[in-house]
Formats: sequence, C-alpha cells, structure tokens
Amino acid sequence: MNYQMPEINLKALFLGDKGENVDLFKELLLKVVDEHVGWRQNYQPQDLPVITPYDKSSKSFQDTTDHVRSVFNELSSKLRTESLPWHTAGRFWGHMNSETLMPSIIAYTAAMLWNGNNVAYESSPGTSQMEEEVGHELATLMSYEKEKGWGHICADGSIANLEGLWYARNMKSLPLAIREVAPEYVAGKSEWELLNMSTEEILAIMDQIPDKLDEVKAHSARSGKHLNKLGKWLIPQTKHYSWLKAADIIGTGLDCVEAIDVDDHYRMDIAKLEAKIRELAAQEIPVLGVVGVIGTTEEGQVDRIDKMVELREKLAKEGIYFYIHVDAAYGGYARAIFLDEHNEFIDFEKIDEVYEKYNVFTEKNEWLTKDIYNSFKAMNQAETITIDPHKMGYIPYSAGAIVIKDSRMRDAISYFATYVFEKGADIPALLGAYILEGSKAGATAAAVWTAHKVLPLNVTGYGKLIGASIEGSYRFYEFLKNKQFKVGDKTIRVYPLTKPDFNMVDYVFNEEGNTDLEKMNKLNHDFFDYASYVKGGLYNNEFITSHTDFAIPDYGNSPLPFVKSLGFSEKEWGREGKVTVLRACGLSPYAHDKAVFDEYAAKIEKAIQDKLETIYKEMK
Amino acid sequence: MNYQMPEINLKALFLGDKGENVDLFKELLLKVVDEHVGWRQNYQPQDLPVITPYDKSSKSFQDTTDHVRSVFNELSSKLRTESLPWHTAGRFWGHMNSETLMPSIIAYTAAMLWNGNNVAYESSPGTSQMEEEVGHELATLMSYEKEKGWGHICADGSIANLEGLWYARNMKSLPLAIREVAPEYVAGKSEWELLNMSTEEILAIMDQIPDKLDEVKAHSARSGKHLNKLGKWLIPQTKHYSWLKAADIIGTGLDCVEAIDVDDHYRMDIAKLEAKIRELAAQEIPVLGVVGVIGTTEEGQVDRIDKMVELREKLAKEGIYFYIHVDAAYGGYARAIFLDEHNEFIDFEKIDEVYEKYNVFTEKNEWLTKDIYNSFKAMNQAETITIDPHKMGYIPYSAGAIVIKDSRMRDAISYFATYVFEKGADIPALLGAYILEGSKAGATAAAVWTAHKVLPLNVTGYGKLIGASIEGSYRFYEFLKNKQFKVGDKTIRVYPLTKPDFNMVDYVFNEEGNTDLEKMNKLNHDFFDYASYVKGGLYNNEFITSHTDFAIPDYGNSPLPFVKSLGFSEKEWGREGKVTVLRACGLSPYAHDKAVFDEYAAKIEKAIQDKLETIYKEMK
Repeated sequence: MNYQMPEINLKALFLGDKGENVDLFKELLLKVVDEHVGWRQNYQPQDLPVITPYDKSSKSFQDTTDHVRSVFNELSSKLRTESLPWHTAGRFWGHMNSETLMPSIIAYTAAMLWNGNNVAYESSPGTSQMEEEVGHELATLMSYEKEKGWGHICADGSIANLEGLWYARNMKSLPLAIREVAPEYVAGKSEWELLNMSTEEILAIMDQIPDKLDEVKAHSARSGKHLNKLGKWLIPQTKHYSWLKAADIIGTGLDCVEAIDVDDHYRMDIAKLEAKIRELAAQEIPVLGVVGVIGTTEEGQVDRIDKMVELREKLAKEGIYFYIHVDAAYGGYARAIFLDEHNEFIDFEKIDEVYEKYNVFTEKNEWLTKDIYNSFKAMNQAETITIDPHKMGYIPYSAGAIVIKDSRMRDAISYFATYVFEKGADIPALLGAYILEGSKAGATAAAVWTAHKVLPLNVTGYGKLIGASIEGSYRFYEFLKNKQFKVGDKTIRVYPLTKPDFNMVDYVFNEEGNTDLEKMNKLNHDFFDYASYVKGGLYNNEFITSHTDFAIPDYGNSPLPFVKSLGFSEKEWGREGKVTVLRACGLSPYAHDKAVFDEYAAKIEKAIQDKLETIYKEMK
Repeated sequence: MNYQMPEINLKALFLGDKGENVDLFKELLLKVVDEHVGWRQNYQPQDLPVITPYDKSSKSFQDTTDHVRSVFNELSSKLRTESLPWHTAGRFWGHMNSETLMPSIIAYTAAMLWNGNNVAYESSPGTSQMEEEVGHELATLMSYEKEKGWGHICADGSIANLEGLWYARNMKSLPLAIREVAPEYVAGKSEWELLNMSTEEILAIMDQIPDKLDEVKAHSARSGKHLNKLGKWLIPQTKHYSWLKAADIIGTGLDCVEAIDVDDHYRMDIAKLEAKIRELAAQEIPVLGVVGVIGTTEEGQVDRIDKMVELREKLAKEGIYFYIHVDAAYGGYARAIFLDEHNEFIDFEKIDEVYEKYNVFTEKNEWLTKDIYNSFKAMNQAETITIDPHKMGYIPYSAGAIVIKDSRMRDAISYFATYVFEKGADIPALLGAYILEGSKAGATAAAVWTAHKVLPLNVTGYGKLIGASIEGSYRFYEFLKNKQFKVGDKTIRVYPLTKPDFNMVDYVFNEEGNTDLEKMNKLNHDFFDYASYVKGGLYNNEFITSHTDFAIPDYGNSPLPFVKSLGFSEKEWGREGKVTVLRACGLSPYAHDKAVFDEYAAKIEKAIQDKLETIYKEMK
C-alpha cells in the first residue's frame, strides 16, 4: 500500500519521556491483541475453546495465575531497579540508546503473537514477505541498483559484519576455484591476477557456467582451502574487537588483519591505506578487502568511502582490486537524510533547499560538509554494507541487517544446488540457506517493516529523525564548547574532541593549567563513575554519560593533536599513553528543539557542577 | 526470589487456542506498560513532559497518529492474511511451532520498553543479570558441575552450533599453540598426541601458564593457522545444511565434514562411528569432534550420547580423543523431564513414581525407554550443547542458547587479555567479548528468565509441559497407526515412520496394494500441498502438516526397512531414490488431554478424508 505521507511530527512516534503518548500506545497495543484474538476465535469457529470456565475456576489455575503475577512483580521490580533512564529528553548523553519507535514496539508485540520464524517462507509467509520488502528498502537506501541489490535482517552488526567477511572470503576465492574446475575461463591469468579480479568480473564468469556452479563452489574457500592465500583484511586502526573476532571465526585468522592508521579526525588515513596496499602488492600479498566505517563506535566519525572507491579505481589500472565492506551498523540509516522523496541522492547544491522544504532541521547548523556528503554518496560502490535498524533505525534490539550490491553474490555463500524461490517472487523458500543464521523472529521483520512504512527511508521520514538527532547533538556540542566550571579556586574547562561527523560528541574535562595527563584522565574517569551505574543509583542520577580510552596500541598518535591542544606535551602523551574521553551519543528525538535543549542545558550544567564538586571534595 | 511452586496448570500459561486468557494477558500487559510509564514519570519528576497538550492537538501530530493507525491496519491485515494457525489445540500437526508462553510474550514486551542491550553490563544491568542467571539454569539443566558450567543466550541454534564448532576448533588447536609458545608443557608429545589431548588436559595446562595465555591464543587456530590439521568433524548422515554452513564459515571447510550413517531409528550408528574414527586414525587423521543430536530436525530422534561417551572413553585408552558437541536445539528443554524438584537426574527405577507425583502424564504411555533415558543422562559429558528456548522452551522467536561444560573454555574464544568481570559476580562486563554475537536484546533474556521462574527446569515445571507435548504426540501416533481411509474403491492406509523418541511423528499415506514408490511419494506430496500454504487458504484449512524427503544422498539406505515394510522392493527404492514423508511436531499444550484429543481426532480424520478425496478426484 502506498501512503500519502503527512508532515511527520516526531513527537507522535515515541511513547514520550514521561509516557505522554501512553493512551495511543495502549490503543494500538490492545487493538493488535484484540485483532489477534479475533483471528484465533474465527479460525474454525466450530471448535470450542479448550480452556473452559471450569478450568479457570479451578484451584490449580488460580494458583498458577497468582504464581505468574508474583513472577511479574519480581520482573518489574528488577527492570525498574536496574535500568538506564535513556528515555529522558535531555539528561542521558551516553550510550547508543534512547527511546525507540512506538510503532515498532507494538508491531513487534503484535507479530510475536503469531510467532513467525523467517527461516522459511512456509512457516512465516506474512513476515517473510515483510523481510524481503525491508531488504529491498535498505538496498534502495544505499542507492544500490534496483533489480540487483538485496538485503536481509540479521541478529546484529557483528553478525552482519561476519557475513560481509564471509562474502568477501568466498568471492575472493572463486577465481582459484574456477582455475581448478573451468580453467578455460581464467586462462593465462597468474595467481596474482586471479586474486585481483573484480567482483564484477568474477560474477560475469559465474554467469557463463551455471552448470558448474556447485563444483566451483565446492572448490572455493568453503572447502577449507585457499584461506591463507586470500590476503589481508584492512580495518581502521582502532580495531574494534568485533573485527578481530570475525577474522578469527571466519578462519582467515587474526594474522590476516592489518590496521590502517586513522587521521586526527578519526577517519581512516587514505594515503596510509594506499601505501599499505602498495607495500603488500610489492610482496605479492593481495588485499582481501577494506573496511570503511560510517559512524565509528567510539567517535561517530565517517570514513571517506569516496576516497576508498577512488583509490580502488586508480589501483585497478595497476591490476590491484580489493573488496569494500562498509560497516554502517551505526550510521547506515543516516543515508536517509541524503535521499529526496523519490529516494534519489540529492544534489549537494540543492540540499539546503530540500531540508527547508521538509523541516529536517529547525535551524541552520554546521554539520554537513562536502566530505561527509561524498562519503555517504559513495556507499553504493561497496560490495556489502552492514546497517543496524536497532541503532539509528530507532528499532528495539535486536535488529541488524546486511545489504549486498549484487544479489548474484548470494551464490557464493548459499546452500542447495537448486534455487528454490517462491513463485512469482524473489523470496527464497528457505532463507536460512542464503544467510549466516537460521531461525529468526518474524516479529523483527514486522517491527522494521512498520517503522519503514511510518517513516520512509528518505528526507520525508527517517531523514527528519536523523536530522533531529544530529541537530540535538550539535546543540550539545555547542553547549560544551567553551564551557567552564568553577570548583573552589579551580577552573575546569570542557573540550570536545572534534567537530562531529554525525551525532556523537566526545569530550574531556580538564583543570586549567594542568599539564599532568594522568590527572586529567583520572578526573574524567571519576566523572564517568559519578555519571553512570558505577556509583549506583542510576535512577537518581541527573546526568548520565559514557566513556572510552584512546590508548596508543589502538590509536597510535592520532589523539596527539587533540592532547597537545589541551596543553600537554608530546612527552607527556608518550608517558601516559592514553587519553580518557567522555562519550555522548545524541539520540534524543526531542533535544533538537531549542526550547527543550535550553531547559535541559541549565539542569545538566548544574548536575555537572555538583559532580565535579563531589569529585574535588573526595580528592582532599 | 524463591517461589513456592503451585501445582502448575498449563492452561493458565497460554493465551489459549481461542484467546480464552485474553483478560489475564491484557491485565499483565497493561500492568507492565503502566509500571514502565510510572518509572519514566518518576525519573526526575521535576522535568516536565516535552510532549505538551498543544503538541498533541496540532495538525501534524494528528496526521501522524492517523498515518500510524493506517499502517497498523495494513500490518494487522497482512499478519491475519498470511499466518499459520498453529495456536489451534488439535488441527496443526506440522512445523516446530505452537502457542508460546504468555508470560514470555509479556515479559519480552515489558523489557522491550527499556530496550536493554546485553552486549555490555553497563548498558543493561538488569537484563544482563537475568541472562547470567538463565545461563546457569541451562547449565544446571544439563547437569553440568555447579561452579564450572556456563551458558548464554544467542540468536538461534545455527549460531549456537557455529559457536560450538568455534570452541572445538580453537580448543583443539591449543596444544599446537602451546608447543610453539611453551613447549616444555607438551614435551615429548607427537603431533598426533597433541591433536588427541582431552579438553580436560588442555585446560589443566592452560591453568599453569596464565601469563602466556594471550601468546598461546595468538598461536591457536584464531591466527588462521593449523586449520587443516585439526581433523574431521563428524555429523549424522542426514547432514543438516546448518552444519555444512558452519564448517564453511568457521574455515575448517566442508572437506573436513564427514557423515556417519544413521540406523533405521534415524540415530547415528555408533558402530559405524567407531569404524570411521579407527579408519581415520589409521591414516593419522584426527577427529576434531562428533556431533550428537537430541531431537533430529526431520524425525525428532535422539542420538545415543551415552554410547558416544562410552566410545570416547574406550578410545581414550588408545590415545584417541574427540570433542563432543550436542545439538539439542530442539530437544534440550526435554531434559527437564528427567530432573526432580532438586534438579537431580532421577533414577530410572523411580521415574514413574515421580511422574505420578507431579502429574507429568495423564495416562501411562510407551514413550520412555532406557535408550532415551541414557542418551539424555549422558549429555553432561559433552563439551558444548546447543539448546533453543524458542523451540521446546515455548518462548517466542528468536532465542537460542549454548551451554559449555567448563567456563574456562571461554578463554579459547574470548577477546581482551584482562578479564573484566563485575565486582562480586561472574558477569562479564562486556559479554560481547566472550560470545559470537555482539548486541543482543535484553528483552530475550527477560522472556527466558520469566519462563524459567514460572516453570522451573525440572519435573515441577517444564517437565510437565514437555510431558504434555510427548503425550499429545503419542496420542497422534496411536491415532495414525492402523488408520485407514476409503476413497471410492481404494483403501489408503497410514504408516508412522518409527516409534518417536520424542514428540515428532513422521508418517506416510499409501494406497493398499501399491508397489510404485513414486506414486506413493506423489500421494504424500499432493497431500502436503492440500495441508499447507501451497494451495492457499491456510485460514480455512482444517488440517495442516509439513513434509520432508528422505533421499539416498542424505539418508543412504536407512529408510529401506521402512520402505520395505510398506511392501516396496529394494529395487523400487533404488529406482525412486527417496521417500516423501509427512512430518508432525506435536507441540500443542492441550492435545495430551484425552477428551481434547478425541474431539479433534474426529475432526482431522474427516479433514484428511476430504483431502484424500480431492486428490483422487484430481487424479482422474
């Protein structure tokens, strides 16, 4: 069904920081329950209910229901005692979490009543179709070619990244397998050339030998062979542990992983990437693939995907090819802010006009640069992309996803020789044979499908929500810049790490005149303790944040310019070897509003003041 | 909290085939919503709601809510049009699905409002504790040693099996790594001996070299080395594709997978397992591990885990060791029927007495044999076990789990040198560093935790539910045995495949006097078409089932005795090469009741008669 889109009011899409929309929430929740119950009742209405009034009056029934009620008292108490108040409109500036879309919560609950399992079409026709639709929507979000792109939901970003690496590994090994099975198709190619064939070239050969598909696959990396020949998997220096884990699991191993330095904007240094690839090529070591990140976990920064693609095009002329996987688990949905109402990528020159038309921002802000624009634009050149609905899709955990540029790539990882698709549709009868996982909740597909219907993946829908998140984060960033606190005779200033590429603001507190980096790190770590679960009493905490360490083994000297700008010497940096940073992910769907932000700014400024005073009191 | 357990009435735990318990469902659902909203309101009650009455009266708000309502109309229509009526008390005898526990559905919804992410304790204290508790409960269900066993929730059985294989691969490679890093600990051992060290021996060495842990790990299979040395992964002949996929992903490859024939009870043939291991040993090829299945996907049969363990003990004396992974994704929760109220494995001699005391069955039935009892009992000797709460745990998709015998094994797959555990508890601060996945819904943990509180994992709780499922399935089995239908002048008889080890009943229809196997297969395939989504109109279908093919490439001649018993010759079997079987998973929590079953038996007998008549009419 095609909906006529209204002017979206984000406040109608969340339960509300104080549960303001609880009436609507209950209305819809009871509606889906009633409609489900009606469905049960009207399936073969001649069948009488098996649970009779007599059953319900029995002692064991009453005792059992009272037992259930007691368990719910405990559950509710535990949840209320030990949870984080990320629903607040302006006091939670920490982890990547916030309110989630009310329609998705309700859709999940609704679909859970049917308990579909999207592993197979047969056991979940409705939600399998929704997942297929969602996959195509996400492919369109990436501007993948209409009839070629494909995607599906998975458990989380780690699984999607692992699947991306699985694709890369198997694809990269296909030419070696072709050489064994159908050598005439790669005649005259050296091993180096085989390992530098483009994905496009490989798929073109595979198209010519459909009858040899199974045999070629049996000789590919899936056999357990070739794994050590495939070359290096290049990831950003910060080496998120999930990438080490993925290389471990996939069998190419940690020894195949090489880190490329990030620059002082915490983006992969493309010059160093080129140098590394050339250095490897000089030793005839191929590059299995390069990972670009859209929204780094600790800084929210955006890698220059456009520069990676440019580099690949340049090196192709020298016979070097690498697979590109974009880890946009965090930032993937943000691409919606670049798509117009027809899902076309907006011209840079026209973008402000479009933002104005759709009220994407309430005020002009300094977020968007050409760099960021180009990075997002080039994503459609990557072979595979991880994107997490449960992050910037504002959908409840857990909902990850992967999209692939060319659905023919599925052959590299799929099982079963004969492709079983549902009649007239491109829906695999057994989705489990085309993905890493098996059983999957149909409810997740329903939650994502509903969110995409409510908020289309362009400026008319998600673009507005993403815009609110970025605008709120920039308000927080501006609030922190040049902020100072007086504690006794000390002045404590706040320093943001960098201008945010997205919606994450990293920052530190430092005492004026302090040249001891260890001391600054301790101050920030102490601050975190008081602004998190560590000191207990989360529910009474008036300002909550998260933290991270940038240490030399992971970051090299990338933080040095920042550390120096705070007045620390290079020697001091070398001595301490790390900088502790506070980290705020700005997801509140309300804090973009100036009035809301200003009200909370006064409150959190006071809360920060109180915490600093406590910390300095304890120091004595 | 310790609850005084009432006599559990299963009818109080489900929404009901006709939604009989919708009042209780709504009571609890609204309670959790209200308590959540109260929590939001009382976090910093001085903060005013950001969504104001004026906001709610605005046109864009009204339009947006109407848009949301329209989307829910579409969602509800799609779910009701294209879902399976597995809630019925007695008409759905097909896929592994049914009603799920009402408390789990509500608990999931409740916890979803808080949206905890169990990847890290910090972002989900309450639900992380629940997951840790659930992990220990599942380890106790397997009779793993109290302070040693550990477990966690994962996306599904495929992921749990993959994680089990990951454990096996990395553990098996540790001795080769120790030889490189700390050779004095394995002095004098040949490579063959290194590859046949027991898990216990390996862990004992690792305990002695804690300071070399990271270096040893860096030299293990995670580096990408040794993968081709680790030997064969032996799985049942039926080779569920998820095992091929797992071997592909994990990098040991499909070439390392060998299938062991099943016997005519569809259990792994232990004599052939021994022969295969000896044959490999003669070539100095080690065995990475053996997979035993508790509840095979297509037949519900139970592998002789006790015999595998016995064989391992016998071969250990000859210097051969293999890892055992039990895939109890399907049948794992059934172990609850063997544990008494103190979670002790019940003596075989006393078991009937205990069943009587706790009303596990309503009547005596012929299910339990010593074979099955011993198979379940020996599970605690396996290194790792997959168990799916979303199968026999009656918990909504998706909720898988894995349990490990010895928590020290975590070191083989974990990241981060320094173990960060929460004070005073054995809860990893970053669970994502100890498991295959990353982000995970805290809501899943809440759903499983609640189910385990409502139904303890022993005869007082889950044992009763499992008992109901088995008893219902045996009623269906008895119903089918010797059943015949008359269609015109033809007589069609029903033949169950085998006495069920658990709650799955496979069966075929065959026309009396028919000696053409292809014809019988067509009859059963046609029957499936009329008893599934294939012919459309699921909602009007009065009897629904599923089907599978047993073909020679997957099953060898295991089905031959069955096929012969139906009057087909061995030659005919060889000619057709497969037998199409109908497959019924008996999960209804009501069909164990004789009155309920008998009522439905008459209805489905008539529905079967109607379908057969339609099929024979179409034949003409």
